[in-house]
Amino acid sequence: MSLNPNSGAFSLSPSGEGRGEALTIIKIGGNVIDNSEKLHEFLKSFTDLPGYKILVHGGGKAATKISDEMGVQAKMVDGRRITDIETLRIVTMVYGGLINKNIVAQMQAYGSNAIGLTGADGNMIKAVKRPVKEMDFGFVGDLDENSVNTKFLGNLIKIGAVPVFCALTHDGDGQLLNTNADTIASVLAVSLSKYFETSLVYCFEKKGVLADVDDESSVIGQIRSSEFDTLKDQGIIAGGMLPKLHNAFEAINNGVKDVYIGKADELELLTTQTFGTRLIQ
Amino acid sequence: MSLNPNSGAFSLSPSGEGRGEALTIIKIGGNVIDNSEKLHEFLKSFTDLPGYKILVHGGGKAATKISDEMGVQAKMVDGRRITDIETLRIVTMVYGGLINKNIVAQMQAYGSNAIGLTGADGNMIKAVKRPVKEMDFGFVGDLDENSVNTKFLGNLIKIGAVPVFCALTHDGDGQLLNTNADTIASVLAVSLSKYFETSLVYCFEKKGVLADVDDESSVIGQIRSSEFDTLKDQGIIAGGMLPKLHNAFEAINNGVKDVYIGKADELELLTTQTFGTRLIQ
Repeated sequence: MSLNPNSGAFSLSPSGEGRGEALTIIKIGGNVIDNSEKLHEFLKSFTDLPGYKILVHGGGKAATKISDEMGVQAKMVDGRRITDIETLRIVTMVYGGLINKNIVAQMQAYGSNAIGLTGADGNMIKAVKRPVKEMDFGFVGDLDENSVNTKFLGNLIKIGAVPVFCALTHDGDGQLLNTNADTIASVLAVSLSKYFETSLVYCFEKKGVLADVDDESSVIGQIRSSEFDTLKDQGIIAGGMLPKLHNAFEAINNGVKDVYIGKADELELLTTQTFGTRLIQ
Repeated sequence: MSLNPNSGAFSLSPSGEGRGEALTIIKIGGNVIDNSEKLHEFLKSFTDLPGYKILVHGGGKAATKISDEMGVQAKMVDGRRITDIETLRIVTMVYGGLINKNIVAQMQAYGSNAIGLTGADGNMIKAVKRPVKEMDFGFVGDLDENSVNTKFLGNLIKIGAVPVFCALTHDGDGQLLNTNADTIASVLAVSLSKYFETSLVYCFEKKGVLADVDDESSVIGQIRSSEFDTLKDQGIIAGGMLPKLHNAFEAINNGVKDVYIGKADELELLTTQTFGTRLIQ
């Protein structure tokens, strides 16, 4: 074969024919991962979703549990978790090994050709160790718009793989780095939106953005970028939802088609677009 | 694009054009993995090797160390290690997470496009849980000649990845399985020999097969299949070398071009064919 391993098998091009194909990137967190029944139901629904897909998962409580078993204390400074070398060792085992590989094995059983990845694998996501300013967060990686190896990741998707990312990246010099899973999902979505029509889905504990925070049935079906400020001013979007939505609209402003926020166990609704809250330009 | 994700991007064919390309599969064990300096030197040499490559690594002492830290006792029956569910959990963390991902990050630093895998990832290696006869080995996987997903693995290699396998496979029904790394290397070599000109390299603690077991300089440079019985009868090949060489010649009889047995820190000699002992048809 005349393929150049360095250039990859496909010429993914920003203006090329690949642009129109749908890619869905879904992020799940502790509330799914820590509940084995919920996780299995979610993975089934995820497998049934049509089109190209990527799963990004956080850590859940397993890392804390293993730390306790190993007698490693979580290191906190000013209420914020620090990734020291011992913690990095544990999250590498738990995120990259235990959680990631069990998800992959389960997805394979459901017929999805999952392949488990950290950002180091295939140099998919390169991060910069967070600079020490007032605080030293330890082995934590920050991402930017050039972090994703879109060519290799795009090729991997095109040969039929369903990438499953855990919350680990690397610095390119041999150092693994703990990296926020929400950020990984968002940076993947923005980077790949040059080549795919990309939807980003955040699964969290509620059914969506609620008009009334105490009423689970008050899910706002759709929010346009232009409506965001009004909803903020009215106090409807507040607290922890503010940064979530801010990041979501930033992704949309950078090429992502839409962002969904909803509950993992309703994922099958995604194909009918009645899943959670849909954020659009 | 018109690619069918299920069929893969390339048509690897047993009689096709890919047959002639060289692929080197190298297995390293504890004596390399447990020594960080040796491991780095090895990974540098491995990166410098030309052609398509796969690395297979065993576990080393890290799993025992983590087990001790977690207070999990190694379960032994008749002197043989049993993979109970607790042990499986630990090897999934240590082999699939800690060791595999640190090797991958280091290889990326050296310029090799490593991608870390269990047999579950991309359904690369499907095993059968070892049947319970006199003994129940627990979550241990046995392989056969149909275990390897050669199409997907071949595609992955062709798009520029360097697969790094740890000693874990899966049963296709969601269960991860602990699997001997020597066997993984051998089954990969045999399966891929239909598509590549495959060399298999076992790194162990000695420089090669020794004519005099007490003399490290007595390495036998080459052994032909036809000479194996004579060397056995003369008592030159005995003890632990017997099954090693038996398996090596079986791989050669099933399509592997040659098998090398030698020391990891001499790997750079492989290109000149003076590395360790070379076994051929």
